[in-house]
Amino acid sequence: MFCDIVVGEAPAVRIHEDDDYLAVLDIRPIVRGHTLVIPKQHHTDLTDTPAETVAGMTILGQRIAQAARASGLHADGNNIVINDGRAAFQTVFHIHLHVAPRHDGDKLSFAKGLVVRRDPDREETARILREALARL
Amino acid sequence: MFCDIVVGEAPAVRIHEDDDYLAVLDIRPIVRGHTLVIPKQHHTDLTDTPAETVAGMTILGQRIAQAARASGLHADGNNIVINDGRAAFQTVFHIHLHVAPRHDGDKLSFAKGLVVRRDPDREETARILREALARL
Ligand SMILES: [Zn+2]
Ligand SMILES: [Zn+2]
Repeated sequence: MFCDIVVGEAPAVRIHEDDDYLAVLDIRPIVRGHTLVIPKQHHTDLTDTPAETVAGMTILGQRIAQAARASGLHADGNNIVINDGRAAFQTVFHIHLHVAPRHDGDKLSFAKGLVVRRDPDREETARILREALARL
Repeated sequence: MFCDIVVGEAPAVRIHEDDDYLAVLDIRPIVRGHTLVIPKQHHTDLTDTPAETVAGMTILGQRIAQAARASGLHADGNNIVINDGRAAFQTVFHIHLHVAPRHDGDKLSFAKGLVVRRDPDREETARILREALARL
């Protein structure tokens, strides 16, 4: 499925693309701006992904986290998460990293599971993040 | 607080140590084997930690995740998490990465928050992980 996004055969709202990685909005965001960093090369999980790919994926995740804070999304922080294996809630078996921008006031709703699962304006969210990334 | 662990002035059960990083058991584990990867040099969060430090921290986290699967803990997967900022549940403001080994059967108890907060035999847990790391 992520391989289809990489080659452009599945739709996705893109935040960033370079030779090795793609960053796209999660289609079921837990918060606004929830982004997935996806290596273009297919690997399944942390057991088969080369260390340098894990490193590159996380460095891009850091940049997106910094962008989320600096952006019009005004994030106060971010959760960076890799779910390694079905037992750890991995649902797509092409390795990826989650960046979930967080706000001071959303702790309770987050803990309660009252989470966004649909962004009413994904294109605008992506534009805001792309712009902040370009400004870093 | 983590700076005190680095210099040996605060106690911790160590899984791994090298020139740049320390890995120790979390004192309030959400699962057995819950490990923290801590850069020895002090940085606060993802806004001030150098990219190479984020990369090195995550690569070590991957190795511990692999060790948890291969170890006597028999993990089926792992959550790798960086909480960047108070809004993202960061509680110690010295950057660190969580590795939480997971098992197929623990999804429900994890989701319900029925989580381990005390490991009855931390030394044995650490020994199991250290041994698996050495065997990778
Ligand atoms: Zn794939
Ligand atoms: Zn410190």
